[in-house]
Order: sequence, then C-alpha cells, then structure tokens
Amino acid sequence: MTESAAGAGTGTRRQAVDQLLAFLACGELNAFERTATDSRFAPTISDRVELAGHAVTEWRHYELVAGRLTERGVDVNAAMSVYEAPLQTFHDRTRPRDWYESLMKAYVSDGMVNDFYRAFAAHLDPSTRELIERVLGQTGHSAFIVDRLRLAIADDNRLGGRLALWGRRLVGEALSQAGHAAERGGPGMMELLGDDNQQAGAGEESGASSGAAPDEPGARISRIFAMMTEEHSRRMMALGLSA
Amino acid sequence: MTESAAGAGTGTRRQAVDQLLAFLACGELNAFERTATDSRFAPTISDRVELAGHAVTEWRHYELVAGRLTERGVDVNAAMSVYEAPLQTFHDRTRPRDWYESLMKAYVSDGMVNDFYRAFAAHLDPSTRELIERVLGQTGHSAFIVDRLRLAIADDNRLGGRLALWGRRLVGEALSQAGHAAERGGPGMMELLGDDNQQAGAGEESGASSGAAPDEPGARISRIFAMMTEEHSRRMMALGLSA
Repeated sequence: MTESAAGAGTGTRRQAVDQLLAFLACGELNAFERTATDSRFAPTISDRVELAGHAVTEWRHYELVAGRLTERGVDVNAAMSVYEAPLQTFHDRTRPRDWYESLMKAYVSDGMVNDFYRAFAAHLDPSTRELIERVLGQTGHSAFIVDRLRLAIADDNRLGGRLALWGRRLVGEALSQAGHAAERGGPGMMELLGDDNQQAGAGEESGASSGAAPDEPGARISRIFAMMTEEHSRRMMALGLSA
Repeated sequence: MTESAAGAGTGTRRQAVDQLLAFLACGELNAFERTATDSRFAPTISDRVELAGHAVTEWRHYELVAGRLTERGVDVNAAMSVYEAPLQTFHDRTRPRDWYESLMKAYVSDGMVNDFYRAFAAHLDPSTRELIERVLGQTGHSAFIVDRLRLAIADDNRLGGRLALWGRRLVGEALSQAGHAAERGGPGMMELLGDDNQQAGAGEESGASSGAAPDEPGARISRIFAMMTEEHSRRMMALGLSA
C-alpha cells in the first residue's frame, strides 16, 4: 500500500527495499548505543547531555524505520540480525579512545551513512524515500560536532594529525564492513541501483568505467564507494584535515 | 509556585528539594548511559532493542526532572555536577562483565534508587512528590529483568552464587557513594527528613535508636540505609538468592 507504481514491482524488489530499511534500522540502533556509550568521554556535563540527546534522536530514527518495516509485514529483529555482525565488527575495530576520536567517529560515520542511502534515494518509491530523507535529515549532530572538532584542531596541531589518521582508519573499516553488509543483503539491494544506467545514466560514469559491465552488482557498489570516499575527503577538508 | 504550604517554607528547604531533584536527574542521566552501554552484552537483538528502550525511558525521566529544575529557576548542569563524581565512581567500581551482571546491576540500583526517594516522599510538597512517583513508577524494567534472572539462576547454580556475591558488592558500593552524594548535597537534603520525628514519629524508631539524637543528619541517613539494606535482601530473595 505504501509503495508507488515505480516501486511495487516484483517481490525481489520489495525484499530489497526491506533489506535496505533493515540495514538502516540496525545502523540506527548501533548508532544509538555508540553515541550513548561515548558520552562517557564528554569533558563537561553539558556535553554529556548534548550527546545523550543525539543518541535518543538516533533511537527515534530506529523506531521510525522499525515501525515502517512492521507495516510492511517484516519481522524487524530477524531482518536486522543479518547486519548485526558487520556493524558490530565495525564498532569493535574502531573503538574511540577519547572524546575527539568519538566525535570524529560520529562525524565520519553519519556522513557515510548519509552518502550510502542518498545513492539509493532516486531509485525508491516516494514513501520510502521520504522516510529515509526524514531519518537522515535529522542528524543535527553535525553543527555541534564540526564546531568542537574545528576548535580543538585549530588549537592543537598534533591532534589534527592524529584525527586525520583516525579518519582514514574509520573510512577504511566502514567501507569494508559496508561491503560485507551489502553481500549479506544479497544481490537484491544492489539491484535497486540497476535502474541507474537505463533511467538516469546515459552520460557520466558509463564512459569512464568501460571495463566492467555497468549494471553488474560489483561495479555498482564500487561506484557508490568511490562517491563515499570523495565525500569523505570533502568532509575532512571541512575540518581543515587531509583525507 | 509549585510548592504547597508544607514545602514552601525557607530558602534552605527549597534548596534541599532542588538538590534532591538534581541528584535524581544526574542519576537518570547515568542510568541512561549505563543501560544503553550494557545493551552490548545482550544475547539477542530483541534483548538489545528491549534494553535500548529502557534506556530511552530513563532519558525521558531525566528530561522530566531537568524540566522541573529549570522551572524552579535552577541551572540544571551546575546542580547535577555536584553528584557527577560519586555516581561515576559507583559505575566505575561496578562494571558488569556480562549480560547477567548488567541485568543484576539494573535490578539492584533501580531498587535502591526507589527506596531512597520513597523515604523522602512523605516530606515533600505534593507537586514534587508526584513528579518523583511518576519517574520512579515507570521503571518497567523489573518484570523483564526478574524474569530473565530467575530463569538463568534456576538453570545454573554457579551463576546464582556469582550473582549473590555481585549483589553484595553492588549494594556496598551504592550505599557508600550515596553517602558521599548526601554529603555533597549538604545538610539540607537530610534535613528534609527532619520532620520525621516531629510529624509522624511519636512511636516507632524513637525508642529503639535511643543512642543518637533522633534528628541528627547522620542518624537519619543511617535509618534510610538500614531500610535500603533490608529492601535489598527482600529483592535478592525474590530472585532466590541470599543477600
């Protein structure tokens, strides 16, 4: 009922949207836990309160997406459990050791999650697209985080160097685990992007990436990852760091 | 404006109520962070979701109490910061090592927090009392936790022994840090209980505790702690454990 003519198509397509939403729900649940946990690093009680508030926003996003999955007749916990391992591995491998590393992690991962889902937005039915935009549009973190990171980096050259290195580690682990997650989601998730070359993509990339068949899943995910890496560099530059 | 004739009295009394509320707000903020953090121990994703939901309830309690403090003209962060150290020490010294220890910690600390605030309830103006009852009445944890702990203990004798020990450590650390917190709150907080002997206490304790002057702050806090220890034993028995 919630899907437009464009999206209602096959069962596979419907399942792929379910997978995309389940990945998002599990990501928001993780983001909630991580943000709440990292607030222990906060230097002042007002930073703790601020961060706890962000965590609760992430929980609300989880609830929104989980609610939609339930409406779609999906068993939310079962659907999320597919993505538990790669998300957990990402977090285990990128445990921040202090307040700045935790802010940086939030900044980098929020950015990458936004990039990832925005790549799908044009291929989704309006109702799903709207949900995703609502969830991603509300991070609100960014101003708070960019503010604090910029000030600290301007103040301390060595911190900048350490955070630039940390940023590279974060982006590497995030892409590697996103790759595993996309595999676990099955081919369906990436096939959502298949329309790319028929619908929108007459020009642009198709000439450049002449090696791989343009709608092969591996090529599609590489395109997204390349875009995410580029956006990551842009975000690091916004902090005065090199990616 | 929110205080009744019974409570509006002196500025000291008003400040004591502010302190009591600030301690509660800081405790709920801590509880939020701990519950959210401990959800990493959850054995299944549905337990994770359940625990995350409890954490968010604790955040809402924080917001309620912080909102009331703001209405009372109190700088919430400054008022809470007085209690940050003892609460942090309690949590640092009682880091759960697994799912059951984290459930047990939530069970024991929720119970003790309830006992502590209920001891004050009769001495507060109706509006403050109502707020505290609203916050404490909504833990909702308990059924979920008691359920899981009981099953696990019935299943594994050694776990029961370990958790009984853990319970004793929790109660000891909690009382010790609550003592520090009460000191930090200044004499006002305990003086809220001073009415005890004039108003309600013609009989009961006054005969038994003939050694200390009945309204000396140290004696008051000992009475509360004795009651909390007793209630703790009752809660441990409810799990089939000895305190």
